[in-house]
Amino acid sequence: MHTPAAKVSGYVVLMIVQIIFLVLFWLFVRYEKTVLPLAIDAEDAGSANEHVSKYPQFQDIQVMIFIGFGFLMTFLRKYGYSATGFTLFMAALVVQWAVLMKGFLHMEGGRISLSLENIIDADIAAAVPLISMGALLGRTTPIQLLCMSIFEVALFAANEYLALHVLSICDCGGSITVHAFGAYFGLAVALMLRPAGDQNEAGKLEGASYTSDIFAMIGTTFLWVYWPSFNSVLADGAGGERAILNTFLSLAAATVTTFVVSALVSHENKLDMVHVQNSTLAGGVAVGTVCNLLLGAHGAVLIGIIAGTVSVLGYRYLTPWMTANLRLHDTCGVHNLHGMPALISAIASAIYASMATVGEYQSELQDIFPAMVGSNGTETKIMGGLGRNATSQAGYQLFGIAVTLLIAIGGGILTGGALKYASFRNLKKDEHHQDEHYWEVPAAESKEEYELEKVDELLL
Amino acid sequence: MHTPAAKVSGYVVLMIVQIIFLVLFWLFVRYEKTVLPLAIDAEDAGSANEHVSKYPQFQDIQVMIFIGFGFLMTFLRKYGYSATGFTLFMAALVVQWAVLMKGFLHMEGGRISLSLENIIDADIAAAVPLISMGALLGRTTPIQLLCMSIFEVALFAANEYLALHVLSICDCGGSITVHAFGAYFGLAVALMLRPAGDQNEAGKLEGASYTSDIFAMIGTTFLWVYWPSFNSVLADGAGGERAILNTFLSLAAATVTTFVVSALVSHENKLDMVHVQNSTLAGGVAVGTVCNLLLGAHGAVLIGIIAGTVSVLGYRYLTPWMTANLRLHDTCGVHNLHGMPALISAIASAIYASMATVGEYQSELQDIFPAMVGSNGTETKIMGGLGRNATSQAGYQLFGIAVTLLIAIGGGILTGGALKYASFRNLKKDEHHQDEHYWEVPAAESKEEYELEKVDELLL
Amino acid sequence: MHTPAAKVSGYVVLMIVQIIFLVLFWLFVRYEKTVLPLAIDAEDAGSANEHVSKYPQFQDIQVMIFIGFGFLMTFLRKYGYSATGFTLFMAALVVQWAVLMKGFLHMEGGRISLSLENIIDADIAAAVPLISMGALLGRTTPIQLLCMSIFEVALFAANEYLALHVLSICDCGGSITVHAFGAYFGLAVALMLRPAGDQNEAGKLEGASYTSDIFAMIGTTFLWVYWPSFNSVLADGAGGERAILNTFLSLAAATVTTFVVSALVSHENKLDMVHVQNSTLAGGVAVGTVCNLLLGAHGAVLIGIIAGTVSVLGYRYLTPWMTANLRLHDTCGVHNLHGMPALISAIASAIYASMATVGEYQSELQDIFPAMVGSNGTETKIMGGLGRNATSQAGYQLFGIAVTLLIAIGGGILTGGALKYASFRNLKKDEHHQDEHYWEVPAAESKEEYELEKVDELLL
Repeated sequence: MHTPAAKVSGYVVLMIVQIIFLVLFWLFVRYEKTVLPLAIDAEDAGSANEHVSKYPQFQDIQVMIFIGFGFLMTFLRKYGYSATGFTLFMAALVVQWAVLMKGFLHMEGGRISLSLENIIDADIAAAVPLISMGALLGRTTPIQLLCMSIFEVALFAANEYLALHVLSICDCGGSITVHAFGAYFGLAVALMLRPAGDQNEAGKLEGASYTSDIFAMIGTTFLWVYWPSFNSVLADGAGGERAILNTFLSLAAATVTTFVVSALVSHENKLDMVHVQNSTLAGGVAVGTVCNLLLGAHGAVLIGIIAGTVSVLGYRYLTPWMTANLRLHDTCGVHNLHGMPALISAIASAIYASMATVGEYQSELQDIFPAMVGSNGTETKIMGGLGRNATSQAGYQLFGIAVTLLIAIGGGILTGGALKYASFRNLKKDEHHQDEHYWEVPAAESKEEYELEKVDELLL
Repeated sequence: MHTPAAKVSGYVVLMIVQIIFLVLFWLFVRYEKTVLPLAIDAEDAGSANEHVSKYPQFQDIQVMIFIGFGFLMTFLRKYGYSATGFTLFMAALVVQWAVLMKGFLHMEGGRISLSLENIIDADIAAAVPLISMGALLGRTTPIQLLCMSIFEVALFAANEYLALHVLSICDCGGSITVHAFGAYFGLAVALMLRPAGDQNEAGKLEGASYTSDIFAMIGTTFLWVYWPSFNSVLADGAGGERAILNTFLSLAAATVTTFVVSALVSHENKLDMVHVQNSTLAGGVAVGTVCNLLLGAHGAVLIGIIAGTVSVLGYRYLTPWMTANLRLHDTCGVHNLHGMPALISAIASAIYASMATVGEYQSELQDIFPAMVGSNGTETKIMGGLGRNATSQAGYQLFGIAVTLLIAIGGGILTGGALKYASFRNLKKDEHHQDEHYWEVPAAESKEEYELEKVDELLL
Repeated sequence: MHTPAAKVSGYVVLMIVQIIFLVLFWLFVRYEKTVLPLAIDAEDAGSANEHVSKYPQFQDIQVMIFIGFGFLMTFLRKYGYSATGFTLFMAALVVQWAVLMKGFLHMEGGRISLSLENIIDADIAAAVPLISMGALLGRTTPIQLLCMSIFEVALFAANEYLALHVLSICDCGGSITVHAFGAYFGLAVALMLRPAGDQNEAGKLEGASYTSDIFAMIGTTFLWVYWPSFNSVLADGAGGERAILNTFLSLAAATVTTFVVSALVSHENKLDMVHVQNSTLAGGVAVGTVCNLLLGAHGAVLIGIIAGTVSVLGYRYLTPWMTANLRLHDTCGVHNLHGMPALISAIASAIYASMATVGEYQSELQDIFPAMVGSNGTETKIMGGLGRNATSQAGYQLFGIAVTLLIAIGGGILTGGALKYASFRNLKKDEHHQDEHYWEVPAAESKEEYELEKVDELLL
């Protein structure tokens, strides 16, 4: 059952990857000018401070990535070491890789400039494979996960560049480029790794214990409170404040809706922790792409209500259907937390873009819809844009999500195929959702279980 | 035992409430001017940033509300889903309601202006019913809790307006308007819902397990570290920094005192987790109203020592007495953590107000004691106040807490009566303090318990 | 077994200490000028704000001290109350003591000036005895721990003053003055309290349970995400931003390395939670002293790789050797998390100092290596330093760590001796690593265990 040789070679490969990162950092990465000491006779001290004004939001996002995602996935009763540990492992690998990959797309003079901005971007990129990991939780080896994340982040960086800088779509909170991409990539990988038809029933450890469910609430609550930072970190000024307000209100409305809908559709009208842990956050995803737009409080609340409803219904009806019919096991239900709410966000962005006017957005049009600047239809003084009109921008928003889905699903199928058929070891059914194949698990614990088993036998 | 019909109608009512909120947001709430895009030819960019300078403190308070309160209440062995889940549910409902209710009291031109300030206020308001929930924990249905919170927050907003804007009392950290109000309102509801005389013994699940006690420490520690943000968020400049320093020192002193007094009064001189989880925080409540005053480090430490002592003694002697004699079950002991320390804070505020002079407070007198500005007894250059003297201000502080107690207790009695006698379902004794009546609980868990029960039988 | 009288006298002493603190605060501590109200006719409002710009980082450090350290130590299966509780107790005592002790070393006119800076320093000082506590976890009474911390913090303040202000070494993140000091002081105390030769085997509760290991991951992850704040809080401008970037990259590299090396050296190539919980953080310690220097991304990553490797190997080989041969039980392995990585940091600081030039550091030389300013070998315009050259500064860095080790180990031996032979009660072997001697532990819990024991008997 244990194949140390395969494990060893996998870990050795990851160490080589880390050393390659070291070499690439040495060759290509340099501190940005504002991170270097000022010349002695320079006068304009303090300019670096402005840079660091995003630091508190960066720290919030750090908590989301390392604690939020990690603990959200501890809900499985015997997979808590892997949930928290592999999150840490994957995020630590990916942040380095993302600094490099995103850096290569924005090099100047053959050098990547390193500043706080880069590691904010890297933290956001780390969310992408963590979302995908949710779709696969408990059904891959750590080596498979890590290799997937390396390929996925490279593809994510390319798709993000395409969406934001070529197609010029708005996506302030990253629902299209981060959430939709991560979710559908992960689902495509899960589809490739789907079990044989006769092994499609749920694993015996594929569920929560009372304690593991409460650990998962640590993840939920930290994601909840810091989500406004995730959505607003790349916006500035009034747009940043709107991103905070809209995200907060959408989350609140989605949460109330989640509880109500969960009770209404569940067995005996009891609340379901899976919904509470996940669908309460759907409001943050669904408002993501449009969070800095002029939604108004009612717009944000409406998006939250829709997202909470769709997400709970997805958990209740769609996920079981996908498992039964497609053998697609989405362990954490990322389709309901990230996938569908991101689609809602993309549609909302098309609707709001179609109504955007320069009279409304004034000086912010340039930041939010840069391709609309210079349009003949508006009498703006700002020039240099593509002159897209509102309808056209709405079309691009839809084109952006379509391209993202295509690249994510295509990439996921290729990656999943590679993980399945290349020399990777695949977990057997009875190895799913448990830590003990990859972790030293306390002996005492096993003893207690052993005892209960003995009692079982005795009582039979 | 299960009455799905009653549950369904309760949840449906809450959904209707959410939709009413949506309509009210649409009718009345608009972004504040600084949250709107600047006109293209405007020059004074950057003014929005000042607004957002409170954002890190807001995020700290978010953690206190959603994680701090939620996990603090997980100490019950079989009520962790409810503690964390209902906190999330209630807070998500209340923040929307508080934006509206507090907004209605400060409308301009028939519109509520929405900015970061409003959601900071809303988070603070969410603390109020969460405190009350602590007094009722495990003895109400979620529908009762939620309905209570809607009524309570409306009353809180009115009382706060009265205390701060009519009576002009100082209450920087909200000990009078938030803590005393929430605690005594909750206790009054608990009194109305008290059990019949023959059912007054503690519930069999009314206690902690080893694991649940450690979960509760997550709540305690986050409340502890972020309390300075709660107390200082509404103060500016030097007053804000004093609020941070005084709160920090008071908490530290209360913590040391709590451990010592807990050991001295407990059985076999062993430390009691209930005291450690709660009384360590009493220093934050007791310094709340006066946290921005010129207490000096020694003043803050003295308040902390008094608060820690009173709180532990309350848990040890007063709570059991109230349970036995008044049948008042204060599950989390909010009287000891919020109630009495808030009274200490009110008394301290009268003492410090009675000694306040314009020579000491200088330009800050206007912010801290606006009603004292323009007093004949002082030679201030600032005009426009009510000219109250220090003794009079001290009297108003005491009047403020008295009015708050009256409104909180009166409102609590009415609300408790409505919850008991209206068409709400009341929990039966054997339904107390357990999640499984309102939550899907993992079957595996029940299996283990079932096993232990079988073992019990076998061994008897 | 229980000796209430000894306990009572210990706690009474701690109360007296708290009251002495109160008196010292009253006699010596006053708000700094910027924390006082501005005179009514003053004009330069807003200067206090600059002061408070460190507040978010302070709050991050608060989380590290109270949640990070506390939960990291919950990994023992029956010592979670003590881990979280005594962390709170010790930190609350030490922060007050540190404000006083560090204040006495920087008094002006017989007064200690109190501002946010002081409580940032106090939080950093609280880390020192918490690190030492890790070396002793489960083998002392709380009274011994608290008394140790009082003596240790006084000595820490003196050593820090010597290292930074007399020897003028650089130590931005405190690896020398905080981590090395705390670790080797604690190890020296542990050596003095080592068991007799016939009692050297591991305690039966000296290990983790599945649940306690996940609680510990709360500590690990919060320490991980906020470590950049710890390292950068005392740096300004570009140096502060470099401290953030370097710490982040070093942590990431150390984390990847930890997982790989853990798998490679562990039994059956399974990952070990002890390594994941601790060695992932070694990158933060190892980069501490040099975090604001011009390491470059590759320098930071290289330090992280070295630290992760050394730390895991230490846990795997050195700690068991020390336990077996020196009877030195380092419960949390602070030697591997804090001790050796701090030595790496000190050596790195000598290497980087030996290469520092004024051409590179420009105007920051004065902040980072103040003793190098005014050196004849450089053509700097800044005057007033000791004119040390780079090689000499490198020597001072090594001298600084040597002196720190000497004082820490000497102080630890004296303190450990006092704790062992003075009138303190020492724990017996079978009292180690369990809460129940100092805490009320839920009866229900004992009942379950009792049942399992009965089952055991039945089955034998």
